[in-house]
Amino acid sequence: MADRVTIVEVGPRDGLQNEQQVVPAAEKIELIRRLAACGLPVVEATSFVSPKWVPQLADAAEVMAGIDPDTPARHPVLVPNMKGLERAVAAGATEVAVFAAASESFSRRNTNCSIDESLERLRPVIATAADAGHRVRGYISCVLGCPYEGEISPAAVVAVAEALYSAGCDEISLGDTIGIGTPHAARTLLRDCAGSVPMERLAVHFHDTWGQALANILACVEEGVRIADSSVAGLGGCPYARGATGNVATEDVVYLLHGLGLETGVDLEALARTGDWISTRLNRDNNSRAGRALLARMSTSGT
Amino acid sequence: MADRVTIVEVGPRDGLQNEQQVVPAAEKIELIRRLAACGLPVVEATSFVSPKWVPQLADAAEVMAGIDPDTPARHPVLVPNMKGLERAVAAGATEVAVFAAASESFSRRNTNCSIDESLERLRPVIATAADAGHRVRGYISCVLGCPYEGEISPAAVVAVAEALYSAGCDEISLGDTIGIGTPHAARTLLRDCAGSVPMERLAVHFHDTWGQALANILACVEEGVRIADSSVAGLGGCPYARGATGNVATEDVVYLLHGLGLETGVDLEALARTGDWISTRLNRDNNSRAGRALLARMSTSGT
Repeated sequence: MADRVTIVEVGPRDGLQNEQQVVPAAEKIELIRRLAACGLPVVEATSFVSPKWVPQLADAAEVMAGIDPDTPARHPVLVPNMKGLERAVAAGATEVAVFAAASESFSRRNTNCSIDESLERLRPVIATAADAGHRVRGYISCVLGCPYEGEISPAAVVAVAEALYSAGCDEISLGDTIGIGTPHAARTLLRDCAGSVPMERLAVHFHDTWGQALANILACVEEGVRIADSSVAGLGGCPYARGATGNVATEDVVYLLHGLGLETGVDLEALARTGDWISTRLNRDNNSRAGRALLARMSTSGT
Repeated sequence: MADRVTIVEVGPRDGLQNEQQVVPAAEKIELIRRLAACGLPVVEATSFVSPKWVPQLADAAEVMAGIDPDTPARHPVLVPNMKGLERAVAAGATEVAVFAAASESFSRRNTNCSIDESLERLRPVIATAADAGHRVRGYISCVLGCPYEGEISPAAVVAVAEALYSAGCDEISLGDTIGIGTPHAARTLLRDCAGSVPMERLAVHFHDTWGQALANILACVEEGVRIADSSVAGLGGCPYARGATGNVATEDVVYLLHGLGLETGVDLEALARTGDWISTRLNRDNNSRAGRALLARMSTSGT
């Protein structure tokens, strides 16, 4: 069997929460259904943060209620705290994700507390979820740079990764929130983190703001990572640079990985159609270059 | 001294010839001047193809006449045949480039003859230029795929590279004209070509149509290539897929290479400003993600 990379599709949550428009729950449910039907093994569904913070996600329970119970995909949801976890579980979630930052300034601005305090608050959330048999993912933001502090030391990232892993997270996603990292830095960071967390428990989450996302994914896959986050059609802008590109597009990642001989289980043509569908619905550009190129070829060949 | 990569800036020629609008010669001259002032060591200036084929480049002699004689950069120009070479030399060019395809169908459609016939026609052009002391670059198109034939075998590319090199070309640029290649294929092709042409005489020329350009450059730089072609602001669309991305943006490449600890001699901020300037003049989007991100940061920090 060929080597496999697990794509974690974050478009319906991380993507839509950074788009301008509010998308109706029915449309989110349809997007999630289509993405799972493309063969994506993990489709992050929504977030149980307070609707006061992110109004785009106020319909989290409604979205969860609409997910096909026979879906072939796993559908983690974001939970910021114990209250979010309770709401998520009540809504039927069986897999959750928590988030912390590797930058003190970002942590204070985003969660109103220090990194250590945020980890302290997350420990019981992670433990409660894990005790109930739920899989828990830990997101770390700003792993290769911070919009307020600039450079972030790999040691700071490793410390947070280690803390989340020992608190019970099954998987740690290393997020280059501002998309500023380059392959050498990304590879070095991954190697450092793999000294504390097993490589198979690490995921990479790149934004394409500086155009480096696919090169970074290539470097990290060469280094051994086998889980990558991405967003169909590149859904989601960059909240720290107006008009800039955010999440790397899933279509581009799948095309890269298949070209490397790595399996993803994803039907790229179906995915390109899904990316086109949601881009049209949102009246936005399709930010996947592989998606656009593939659609152009499909329309030429009449498929 | 750190390891160095030579960027061959192709925006004023390959870029502008694929843009919709005709740009006045004075503006082309100004673009070339600004690009050289950014520290780019090689800025392809124009093309002496027949104005009947590419009306955007009918002002080739005028552009050459406007180039600062004290420019720190080298300024190769494209020549399709002996007549083009004569016009180029008469206009003051001291460095030229010829082109051939690795795909029979592309060769026939683009130059109206087979690959072998095109090589036969180019041999005296290359020899004449080389005998006069001019440096000669050989472009090969469709090295990782053809819009008409699909896959292209590495052996076909190696044969053309070998023929151009033994005909007297100083440098061979391997062009993924439709931007369809992925890193494993790119790396393998480069390795194969380096079996016949010394690695230091090979350049890579990637288009970003499928989003893979930077990942491909990373793979090829890891493999040993030290010359990369790119286009400021990603000037130039893809003539084979309407609305698709063409040349990889120089700003993104420079940002990648500097992050890898490789020197380019390029002032990235000056380059980003130049990319923004020409994009504004052409009333088009700036297709460099690193350029846009850097400009956003510069405007925030007031620099």
